[in-house]
Amino acid sequence: MTSEYARFLPLVQEIYYLRTTAGLLSWDQETMMPPKAAEIRAKQLATLSSLHHQKLTGPEFGDLLGTLETQSLEPDAQVVVREMGRDYRRAVKVPTALVKEISETTSLAYSVWIRARAQSDFQMFSPWLKKIVRLKTEEARCLGFEKNLYDAHLDDYEPGLTAEKAGKLFGLIRDEVITLLDGAVRLSSKQASDGWLKATYPLDLQQSFGREIVDRMGIDWESGRLDVSPHPFCSGNGPTDVRITTRYNEHDCLISLFGMIHETGHALYEQGLEIGNFGTPLCDTVSLGIHESQSRLWENLVARSREFWEHWFPRFRKIFPEQTRGLEFEDFYRAINKVERTLIRVDADELTYNLHVILRFELEQAMFEERLSVDELEEAWNRKMKQYLDRVPPDSAQGVLQDVHWASGLLGYFPTYLLGNIYAAQFYRQAKMEIADLADQIRAGRLESLRDWLKEKIHRQGKRFSASDLVQRVTGETPDAKYFIAYLREKFGN
Amino acid sequence: MTSEYARFLPLVQEIYYLRTTAGLLSWDQETMMPPKAAEIRAKQLATLSSLHHQKLTGPEFGDLLGTLETQSLEPDAQVVVREMGRDYRRAVKVPTALVKEISETTSLAYSVWIRARAQSDFQMFSPWLKKIVRLKTEEARCLGFEKNLYDAHLDDYEPGLTAEKAGKLFGLIRDEVITLLDGAVRLSSKQASDGWLKATYPLDLQQSFGREIVDRMGIDWESGRLDVSPHPFCSGNGPTDVRITTRYNEHDCLISLFGMIHETGHALYEQGLEIGNFGTPLCDTVSLGIHESQSRLWENLVARSREFWEHWFPRFRKIFPEQTRGLEFEDFYRAINKVERTLIRVDADELTYNLHVILRFELEQAMFEERLSVDELEEAWNRKMKQYLDRVPPDSAQGVLQDVHWASGLLGYFPTYLLGNIYAAQFYRQAKMEIADLADQIRAGRLESLRDWLKEKIHRQGKRFSASDLVQRVTGETPDAKYFIAYLREKFGN
Repeated sequence: MTSEYARFLPLVQEIYYLRTTAGLLSWDQETMMPPKAAEIRAKQLATLSSLHHQKLTGPEFGDLLGTLETQSLEPDAQVVVREMGRDYRRAVKVPTALVKEISETTSLAYSVWIRARAQSDFQMFSPWLKKIVRLKTEEARCLGFEKNLYDAHLDDYEPGLTAEKAGKLFGLIRDEVITLLDGAVRLSSKQASDGWLKATYPLDLQQSFGREIVDRMGIDWESGRLDVSPHPFCSGNGPTDVRITTRYNEHDCLISLFGMIHETGHALYEQGLEIGNFGTPLCDTVSLGIHESQSRLWENLVARSREFWEHWFPRFRKIFPEQTRGLEFEDFYRAINKVERTLIRVDADELTYNLHVILRFELEQAMFEERLSVDELEEAWNRKMKQYLDRVPPDSAQGVLQDVHWASGLLGYFPTYLLGNIYAAQFYRQAKMEIADLADQIRAGRLESLRDWLKEKIHRQGKRFSASDLVQRVTGETPDAKYFIAYLREKFGN
Repeated sequence: MTSEYARFLPLVQEIYYLRTTAGLLSWDQETMMPPKAAEIRAKQLATLSSLHHQKLTGPEFGDLLGTLETQSLEPDAQVVVREMGRDYRRAVKVPTALVKEISETTSLAYSVWIRARAQSDFQMFSPWLKKIVRLKTEEARCLGFEKNLYDAHLDDYEPGLTAEKAGKLFGLIRDEVITLLDGAVRLSSKQASDGWLKATYPLDLQQSFGREIVDRMGIDWESGRLDVSPHPFCSGNGPTDVRITTRYNEHDCLISLFGMIHETGHALYEQGLEIGNFGTPLCDTVSLGIHESQSRLWENLVARSREFWEHWFPRFRKIFPEQTRGLEFEDFYRAINKVERTLIRVDADELTYNLHVILRFELEQAMFEERLSVDELEEAWNRKMKQYLDRVPPDSAQGVLQDVHWASGLLGYFPTYLLGNIYAAQFYRQAKMEIADLADQIRAGRLESLRDWLKEKIHRQGKRFSASDLVQRVTGETPDAKYFIAYLREKFGN
């Protein structure tokens, strides 16, 4: 370790301690915080972001970084320097005042969004979204970009991603989904009675069944917790403090279940990071796309498969005997894979989900290219919903107000959900090749080989490799949509 | 507002935002945090304290303060400058590295204390306490003091307090309590059957009854929450984010009830601060002694009085009809005021409580005067327990390990509990004089006049006056133990 690196490391750790502190405050805001505390919370978060920004752009940090970038370092130290260099170069371009304003605005906008969604009132929220788009445009101008303002934000969540690249990938998927959709919907509609779906599933039993499954996936409750929030999420603030949330609906036993499995996929990634490297990029996740690949791999590729339910279906029926009286395996399997044109992204099936994301990507792109204003946003949303999914939201809550992301300033985030699908399919194909009897293990309710494989290949690597390099190392090929498309064809084709 | 003050104010607010952020993390640590996150939390808290310390002692802050102290300012601005000057002068004396080490050590020691108390193993905890005493001694040397090292810490929690002053006040009370104790214990032992005390009180009913009472006291749940923690506390992080905790015991319906009333006394103080001044000493509590006066006033002077239960006793019996079958008012009143020589401070009655505090004060004093080492602490504790309360703890958990304070580095904190009793008696006497029919209001279950009086006279004043000046302004006299002694004599004398 060079003497510069020895001085650099504590500065990096301080930056990570501030980030995880802000993460904690955000988690608290969405789960525990008394409602009237929103204004104070906004001030606290703004203070943390501006301190974080000051630390990251401070002269000592910049000087050490400059020196370290010319030194020959151990591979792990190189990773720390490379990744912090990336953060540094993004941060120095944005004035602290703008960082603080974005943090304060989005923290307040979150509370407004909560109320606006409850009252289904887009007008209440739109002044805030205008301000957020204006601030994020200003931020993108500071950050710089090659072709499109939007690229500056895409690169934040998925390093290297551009609107052009995303547009091409997503175009392939959109066309494929549209080709498959009619047939899949037709097949899904040929269902036996789905009375069981509308039965009452007591919340405590839903919770204990969900916990049984995610325990088997290997979540560590000594390093995590489960709470309830309106928009389920996973908050990872170091591998020993990973918090997931869910929501329960007595009349929909599947929402909470698949939500918990999804968030546990995220949580296993966070818990699988190397604690010994906490406070550095070596103990940090690669990108949102890779993160999402972990949640979707478990939620869809594993937990919506026949083999998974060969183990869990009898258990499900045992816990809910009245509700599932007479329910056949095949009807259950069809129900959890039902394809339907619906309004809400987070409840959408594996096939239409992609269209929900593409719609948001296209709207964000149009806003950053100034082809679309916030005032026209709801109309554009509804038009695209009609075009892609033949549905028009009856109100704003089920339309343009449904997601938390824009309120939180997360413009450029949605596309990573689709990348997650693409990566997940490619990873899972590889896992099945390397773990020869994986399907049989899953049939027997054994999930530990898969979890260990993911931990070894992906989780513990931290940020050592870029998303693209990681996919290449794990699967021998750069990321390619063809595996996801093949998966969709096999599952939903006729 | 002078231009210097306009530049100073945001710096003060930033300091308060960091303080309340650390407060939030501490609350989370004691209520929500997954156990394995303790190490990460210690790092986060240490980072926040060292940033707080850097901000408070930074050259810009010191320079502006120096200028402002020579300017003629509005009264409120004077308060801000005076109080931040006090904080500044304490902070500049302590190196940031020591601040960080204390924060990190106490955050880790808290987790060790939890385990040590559970296993009743003082040896497990004592190396940590040694380190804490060593660090706090070093801190006191940095801070400076006139007579006794201990004074440096007493002054932290109760500005102006010294070991000598406390020793005199506490001596009077100790002698008085010892005089009253035999008779009070004899009277208490003449009780009717207390079978009802050992009945089973379902936790949800305990909670809803407790909530009913604290709702009537006027706690605002939109600006606060209630959770469970092993050691009940109130965490005030701004008047709109005040969180209290309690603990429930199915076989002791009074512990949780009086605990909730106590913590709500604290919470009303925090919620009664002026939100418009948040981020400054104008929206901060005066001292721990004044804080404790609010909790003890409600818990003891109000909620252990006959008039209070004239309203609530019928309600209590209605909620727990089986458990309280045949229970007479007078037996209930005696039970909630039972005087008994017991081991645990937080469960002690109003009379012996004072001896528990005096014991801790004397041990802390001896440790800081280097008359007592941590290795001898448990023996000294047990000896004093025998001397004052004629009881010897059967194990460490019921003795020297019972309180969280030392693990949290709060040496010098205990004496403020006794000051709280002294102030409370003096405030309540005044309230009864100014609200002529207060006893009748309380008899009718009406608590709002008292709450409004406390808010007006004490809560909304923030740090405008020192503890002593505040007592003088509210009651016309400087703090005097005679009112507390008179109260004890009247209630517990023969």
